[in-house]
Amino acid sequence: MEKSTHLDHITLGVCYYPEQWPREMWQSDLLRMKAHGIKTVRVFEFAWSVIEPKDNKWDFSLFDDFLALANEDHMQVILGTPSATPPAWLPHAHPEVLNAKMDGTLYRHGHRRHYNYNSPVYRQYVSRVVEKLAQRYGDHPAVIGWQIDNELNCETNVFYSQADHDAFRTWLKKRFGTLEALNDAIGGRFWSQSFSAWEEVFLERPVVGRGNPHLSLLEKEFISDSAISFADMQAQILRKHIGHRFITTNGMFGHLKNDELTNQVLDFYSYDNYPNFAYGQSGINGGNGGDMKDRASSYALSAVRGFSPNFAIMEQQAGAHGWDHAMLSPMPLPGQMRLWTMQAIAHGADYVSYFRWRTAVFGTEIYWHGILDYDNRDNRRLKELGEIYQDIQKIQDMAGAKYQAKVLLLTDWLNDWDGERDQWHGPMAYQSNQAIFAASQHTHTPLDIKPWNDAMTPEALVAYQLIFLPHAAILTEKMANVLKAYCEAGGKLVLGARTGYKDEFGRCLTVPMPGYAAEVCGMTVEEYSLPRPDETAMLAWNGKTYPVTGFQESMIPQDSQAIAYYDSGWLQNKAALCEKRYPNGGCAWYAGTGFSESLSEAFFISAGAAHPYSQIVDCPPQVELAVRSNGKEDWLILLNYAQQPQPIHVDKEFVPVLGGMDFLQPLGVSIWKRNS
Amino acid sequence: MEKSTHLDHITLGVCYYPEQWPREMWQSDLLRMKAHGIKTVRVFEFAWSVIEPKDNKWDFSLFDDFLALANEDHMQVILGTPSATPPAWLPHAHPEVLNAKMDGTLYRHGHRRHYNYNSPVYRQYVSRVVEKLAQRYGDHPAVIGWQIDNELNCETNVFYSQADHDAFRTWLKKRFGTLEALNDAIGGRFWSQSFSAWEEVFLERPVVGRGNPHLSLLEKEFISDSAISFADMQAQILRKHIGHRFITTNGMFGHLKNDELTNQVLDFYSYDNYPNFAYGQSGINGGNGGDMKDRASSYALSAVRGFSPNFAIMEQQAGAHGWDHAMLSPMPLPGQMRLWTMQAIAHGADYVSYFRWRTAVFGTEIYWHGILDYDNRDNRRLKELGEIYQDIQKIQDMAGAKYQAKVLLLTDWLNDWDGERDQWHGPMAYQSNQAIFAASQHTHTPLDIKPWNDAMTPEALVAYQLIFLPHAAILTEKMANVLKAYCEAGGKLVLGARTGYKDEFGRCLTVPMPGYAAEVCGMTVEEYSLPRPDETAMLAWNGKTYPVTGFQESMIPQDSQAIAYYDSGWLQNKAALCEKRYPNGGCAWYAGTGFSESLSEAFFISAGAAHPYSQIVDCPPQVELAVRSNGKEDWLILLNYAQQPQPIHVDKEFVPVLGGMDFLQPLGVSIWKRNS
Amino acid sequence: MEKSTHLDHITLGVCYYPEQWPREMWQSDLLRMKAHGIKTVRVFEFAWSVIEPKDNKWDFSLFDDFLALANEDHMQVILGTPSATPPAWLPHAHPEVLNAKMDGTLYRHGHRRHYNYNSPVYRQYVSRVVEKLAQRYGDHPAVIGWQIDNELNCETNVFYSQADHDAFRTWLKKRFGTLEALNDAIGGRFWSQSFSAWEEVFLERPVVGRGNPHLSLLEKEFISDSAISFADMQAQILRKHIGHRFITTNGMFGHLKNDELTNQVLDFYSYDNYPNFAYGQSGINGGNGGDMKDRASSYALSAVRGFSPNFAIMEQQAGAHGWDHAMLSPMPLPGQMRLWTMQAIAHGADYVSYFRWRTAVFGTEIYWHGILDYDNRDNRRLKELGEIYQDIQKIQDMAGAKYQAKVLLLTDWLNDWDGERDQWHGPMAYQSNQAIFAASQHTHTPLDIKPWNDAMTPEALVAYQLIFLPHAAILTEKMANVLKAYCEAGGKLVLGARTGYKDEFGRCLTVPMPGYAAEVCGMTVEEYSLPRPDETAMLAWNGKTYPVTGFQESMIPQDSQAIAYYDSGWLQNKAALCEKRYPNGGCAWYAGTGFSESLSEAFFISAGAAHPYSQIVDCPPQVELAVRSNGKEDWLILLNYAQQPQPIHVDKEFVPVLGGMDFLQPLGVSIWKRNS
Repeated sequence: MEKSTHLDHITLGVCYYPEQWPREMWQSDLLRMKAHGIKTVRVFEFAWSVIEPKDNKWDFSLFDDFLALANEDHMQVILGTPSATPPAWLPHAHPEVLNAKMDGTLYRHGHRRHYNYNSPVYRQYVSRVVEKLAQRYGDHPAVIGWQIDNELNCETNVFYSQADHDAFRTWLKKRFGTLEALNDAIGGRFWSQSFSAWEEVFLERPVVGRGNPHLSLLEKEFISDSAISFADMQAQILRKHIGHRFITTNGMFGHLKNDELTNQVLDFYSYDNYPNFAYGQSGINGGNGGDMKDRASSYALSAVRGFSPNFAIMEQQAGAHGWDHAMLSPMPLPGQMRLWTMQAIAHGADYVSYFRWRTAVFGTEIYWHGILDYDNRDNRRLKELGEIYQDIQKIQDMAGAKYQAKVLLLTDWLNDWDGERDQWHGPMAYQSNQAIFAASQHTHTPLDIKPWNDAMTPEALVAYQLIFLPHAAILTEKMANVLKAYCEAGGKLVLGARTGYKDEFGRCLTVPMPGYAAEVCGMTVEEYSLPRPDETAMLAWNGKTYPVTGFQESMIPQDSQAIAYYDSGWLQNKAALCEKRYPNGGCAWYAGTGFSESLSEAFFISAGAAHPYSQIVDCPPQVELAVRSNGKEDWLILLNYAQQPQPIHVDKEFVPVLGGMDFLQPLGVSIWKRNS
Repeated sequence: MEKSTHLDHITLGVCYYPEQWPREMWQSDLLRMKAHGIKTVRVFEFAWSVIEPKDNKWDFSLFDDFLALANEDHMQVILGTPSATPPAWLPHAHPEVLNAKMDGTLYRHGHRRHYNYNSPVYRQYVSRVVEKLAQRYGDHPAVIGWQIDNELNCETNVFYSQADHDAFRTWLKKRFGTLEALNDAIGGRFWSQSFSAWEEVFLERPVVGRGNPHLSLLEKEFISDSAISFADMQAQILRKHIGHRFITTNGMFGHLKNDELTNQVLDFYSYDNYPNFAYGQSGINGGNGGDMKDRASSYALSAVRGFSPNFAIMEQQAGAHGWDHAMLSPMPLPGQMRLWTMQAIAHGADYVSYFRWRTAVFGTEIYWHGILDYDNRDNRRLKELGEIYQDIQKIQDMAGAKYQAKVLLLTDWLNDWDGERDQWHGPMAYQSNQAIFAASQHTHTPLDIKPWNDAMTPEALVAYQLIFLPHAAILTEKMANVLKAYCEAGGKLVLGARTGYKDEFGRCLTVPMPGYAAEVCGMTVEEYSLPRPDETAMLAWNGKTYPVTGFQESMIPQDSQAIAYYDSGWLQNKAALCEKRYPNGGCAWYAGTGFSESLSEAFFISAGAAHPYSQIVDCPPQVELAVRSNGKEDWLILLNYAQQPQPIHVDKEFVPVLGGMDFLQPLGVSIWKRNS
Repeated sequence: MEKSTHLDHITLGVCYYPEQWPREMWQSDLLRMKAHGIKTVRVFEFAWSVIEPKDNKWDFSLFDDFLALANEDHMQVILGTPSATPPAWLPHAHPEVLNAKMDGTLYRHGHRRHYNYNSPVYRQYVSRVVEKLAQRYGDHPAVIGWQIDNELNCETNVFYSQADHDAFRTWLKKRFGTLEALNDAIGGRFWSQSFSAWEEVFLERPVVGRGNPHLSLLEKEFISDSAISFADMQAQILRKHIGHRFITTNGMFGHLKNDELTNQVLDFYSYDNYPNFAYGQSGINGGNGGDMKDRASSYALSAVRGFSPNFAIMEQQAGAHGWDHAMLSPMPLPGQMRLWTMQAIAHGADYVSYFRWRTAVFGTEIYWHGILDYDNRDNRRLKELGEIYQDIQKIQDMAGAKYQAKVLLLTDWLNDWDGERDQWHGPMAYQSNQAIFAASQHTHTPLDIKPWNDAMTPEALVAYQLIFLPHAAILTEKMANVLKAYCEAGGKLVLGARTGYKDEFGRCLTVPMPGYAAEVCGMTVEEYSLPRPDETAMLAWNGKTYPVTGFQESMIPQDSQAIAYYDSGWLQNKAALCEKRYPNGGCAWYAGTGFSESLSEAFFISAGAAHPYSQIVDCPPQVELAVRSNGKEDWLILLNYAQQPQPIHVDKEFVPVLGGMDFLQPLGVSIWKRNS
């Protein structure tokens, strides 16, 4: 079954921590939530020490009482398994459960995720507490579903405990069978790096410089598998006891194949959505000044949708955020919570749960604001919540409708991880992804983002008019075959500099670049370099010029046409862009550089993919356009991220459901509907 | 008895290290000191290895001989206890005496303060050496007093040795009695952070992120108590042997309640005064360009005066400073040593001891220049010392006179320490303190600085017309009561943003902000945020505007009047400043932001506290004005920090004692006197 | 015998890694090399795990076969000893062979130089493998010489393993004999730093702040001696087996007296020449914008020539460089490889070996490009190699000819190392060296660079018209005597600020500055300071002004004349430059500041040393001029670093051998010859 929420109406929820508040407040809290449209609470994911205050001493009274009250109040509950924060007694008695720095220094009790996924001892303790919880609450009438752990691979996504070293060795044995195979995969003939016995193999340890890069890439695959296996262990226990109730987890963080996690372990994925994380970040063309600030969240929401078409927001920003020590964003402006909520829904979220009901008054997150402030008074944000609920009523039937896009940005876990270390493709890929996304936003061209997986078929991909795979340094024969078949089926493909020169271990191929993609694109690379710091060459295409970013390659067209050239510099007049046309209308472009926003837009236009709704809706670049459809009905969603009103015009075949008809208010939202 | 020097005349001294020079030089050094006005030498605080070259092998010959010579030459001696630099054999034999990094790495022999205050072994060794010294020299005729250790909490003010972890646990048990009470204080219900046994409790250790913030605040209180207890241990030994002679220590450094140290252990406090530490610092409006460079020292001198009205300068900068590796300031300009000396005296220093007689020719401090250079030639700075001594002769009777101020800047240790980590109030408080101080300097409004203590009474505080307590996030009920009574007694109080939302453990109060101060100020906070990076709102008050700095709050006046508003931005037209008038002329202001210099000055003026001597003296902002009085006589001290001459005019009821009458020379000083 | 290559013709080579490629490629690789002018290959320096895959299990088949093939193909081979990269099994079984961080954390297998030079275990393993290699291949007909290890002290040049601590103690005992002598040398009377037993002595360990500065200087001498001793151990084994074949090593890196290494252990020195390391560096006036980018290599080449007049380039940059993770330079432009090759030859390199034949396809150096790319296709760089070989044919007889210079920049290891830590002279010396070098380049004044050694005589030095010793803080009596005798013999000497105030342990002398140089220069220093940040004083000399850089001193002329003064600021009108004239035309200048390029040039001109070939050649500053001579023939080499053509004019007594006659092409080279 599709990994989606499968809700029959858009639903609001909230995160709540009964153990942090006097019991006397519970009832008023629940009733006040309901009065503002909240139907569901997520609870208990950090409460291990409450139920197991000492090793194997159990006290479920607080849980029992809260769940009974929730049931009485007809409030639905999502229960978290508490493995993200083991009680103090556990690592004190068993330090081997702790994660460690690369040099072996243990991470101690006091924050989150100080444990490791592979410690047999930790796995036993976690299994026991999850089993106890599942047995006790698996069929509780208030409980509708479970969240495993909290934000897997958040806080840290590298692991160097003894248990991890040991598990890595086991994992490698299983993967490679022999030391010879491992030595070959990691280029052991370089610098005498071959292993002569399995005992010599470790996750990265302190070295002069950096360790073997291929082992480093395998390390990230191992970490992803470890996290998935840890979640799966919990899911298998839960499934024995919870019947039809769902299992999810919230994310999304690094060194983790979230699509694989979802497919193997979960019913759907939940995203923790904090648009103001973009505040002050330099990504996209946002930062403090640019217009992509809050819009950056749409990138992440698209990526989640890539493997969980209708998903949950388990934590939706409801105030200024920060930890106990630092201010990280200002308080949301009036209307901004609503905008963010609608943005999440526009991208496919059918459940939106705010973090958190009331701001914590102690601990690390006293500045991670909830809806209510410390003083529990009615405040502006609570009022806005009530208003959001009124709005949601008008679009409830959108639940289950799918986001519509004809352009795909294809990503790839291995390339992401190799590119963390490899500055010759990683940072450029990041910049290109952001620029392609910005171009899609500003031109109103809905865009999907999906990670490559080997089950992808040309038949499925050809639903997209245009696919970007910007800088897949690692491009396997399998991928090349699928992409070629996609082009042959009429699809249009865009590849960029640094494509295809590595294999799945990060070793360089001994064939001309771009490796397996050479045939797809009908060319090979001739010269390549980082852009010379003392030059400002441009790529000249069809009378316009586009900046050379990230890298610069010239190419020799074979079964293709050079259609753009460098206008100056050491590669002046060399081919900068090749186009291979396929009989069926398909096309493969290879660009010898990174993708700026303007170059990305040029490909949207060349492919005829830009602004597919231009006949229906007219709005300025400041406005995001999203379309959801359930096959019978289509919704147009317009989101104004600017603090100035924006003119909009929507064709009359759509009828307004929510918000302004001619203008979008500052931070305003407008939703329209038609029968398709 | 008041914690003051109680000298009957202003006295000059110098720091000297007989063990670092050939004995043949001692006599000529001492006679040359005397010839330039030096009466007192501080010696031996780093000479432990000289008297105890091996464990329990004693050799006092060098000390004996030097003290005998000093006595012969009628030179007074201050003896330092040598605990800041244990000999190499001690930590080698007993590594448990060493301090450690947070990850447990021991700090080794080779610098200073590599020991910890809590090691029972170290305490035994220190007790023994102090007892030996006190027995031998307690009644020595040349010795006039003792300095304990050197610069407690300098170099490092965090401690993570095993002995510290153990002592912290003991300290917590004493403070909280039960684990339940501790768990409550640290918000143990958050993220399963409760302890189930005392053995699980540690000072901060490496964690993913940061550890519990409340425990972190307790850690700083513990460090302060540890240092005080360590000093007290030494003082108790000394008191048995030294009769009327004084005990002091030199400072002042972080994580140490220097007022409590002074009150509990010392006869008076000594400050180490290096005005050029301000060189290149960005604080105040100084830095390299601003005019507050050397003037920054007046802030620290005021703070020392806050708990030791007449104090000593144990180390007064006498040359360029730096370590063995870095240049940290240029050589003092001609006249600058004199300016700095007079600045210290202006603020209440009655003993000024230069650091050091001759610059070290080996070791870590070869660039921490003394008066003489390596070559021992007569130099400019020695000549200036002789001139300073001549000047001092003219103001000897100022000894014991008190600095006069009607405005108080109230600080608070707990807020300082909580604010080290909490960027939502600490950095703003630092900026506001500096701005208030700059305003006081530029408007010639003498200012006292004192740390809050629970013995403070409204009766004592009302001696001040105006009190600033800028951003006391932690504001206890006790403090609120005293401040309210102060207002009721006619005092004027200024509070700023972020006041009063935390308790003494750094937990947030569950009442409207500013907590206990709400009644004092007659208002509550409505909206709050860090200033939006994309706005430049101003606070508009009485036709002028003032910048929003550090934070931004709007408020709801209750028993007060809103008297200023934000002029634009998301809080436009919301109340920015409330004023509660008290019947007796008192007043409480609450400003919803940090204090710029201009806003601070506006409060000086509103309170009628600006430039109290405007009828008597006229001088430009480049000049600092200080007044000392002994009840019978008043001295006006004018200090010119500029390298240009400055015009001054002093009323004729004052007579000139020193320096220019109509103009202050560049870096010049002018002192005037009247009978009051 | 002179430490030089002693080749009878300029020779090209390449670095090759047979173990990294299929055997089937060897033959075609070797033949293709030969076809492009390569006569020599360096091999095997990282192949320990190939010949000793397990402890004492030997497999020489790969080596045997490759050497046989090379011999068959008449290709000469340089064999590397493999000690830079021990196999994984070695440190796994014997962790004591590993180097450690200062805190004791071991550096693990995975990169290079993770071993230490002093471990007896490692020395045994290295001795065994070197002996095995020497026995087997010592008289192999293809082998012409040996390279010891690879890039000693590259990657790291500090060592803190237990073996190093132990060896340091032994080294100190040998050097000082008694603890008393050591304590005296390190200023142990400061801060109780005296040792009471040898067991208390360690290399630097974590301290609060930094450890004893004098011990830190000794530590660097110890490291240099350790590296030399490690190389010598290998050389002595090799010498038993290799007959007339040469021994060299490649470098050059820090904390190593490369001249002493060469004299004691090697037949000549080899330099690894990567001109693009200068890319993006801020040194000299280069960086990205300045014109000294690639020219910076000439500085290093001159320094190598200082102790190995004709030397080898063991690794010559042949492509963009970088590691597995970062792009560090762009791809060389067309012609740039040739320019760099000729630059090396101009400075005395008679053997130039490119790094590497084909770029690695796995491991840490996949972006350290060789001549060929991963795909093994003929490429531009291979073509350029062939062209370079054609050019080299025309200048083969230049082999053995010496670089001609009349100006010497004298450096000193102790000052370099003391200045690493001491910011009061080290950074200034670096800047001055770069500026003097830039002045020499731009004025076409060939310059030698040599490290001071105690065997230097006035007789030898007087071959130089002019010697700069910019800021020798440590200037011994011996040095002063030699320099004085040089002046008396007619030489001209330039000293700068901060000269002569320290002894060989970094302790300050108790005599007036500049210590032993005071008599040489006939003056003493009066005032000194870092340049005041708020002043911009200039040194005024002969109607021109020069910037004060790095430091500022005024001086009292005694047996000299003040000939320049400061034009403003606190030292206005004080002496800034003294000149002591010697009867024989000699002269000693002491400048109270660092050397800017303009001030350096002023000394070139004053000494009559600027542009000695001005009658013969005329060319713009963008062009480097070098002259080599074998006593019978002189070669003029002109190198154009600019991307624009440059006009040149050479007197007709020279005949063109290579390149343009009236213009130098962009990145062009022109070589001329005459009989002298």
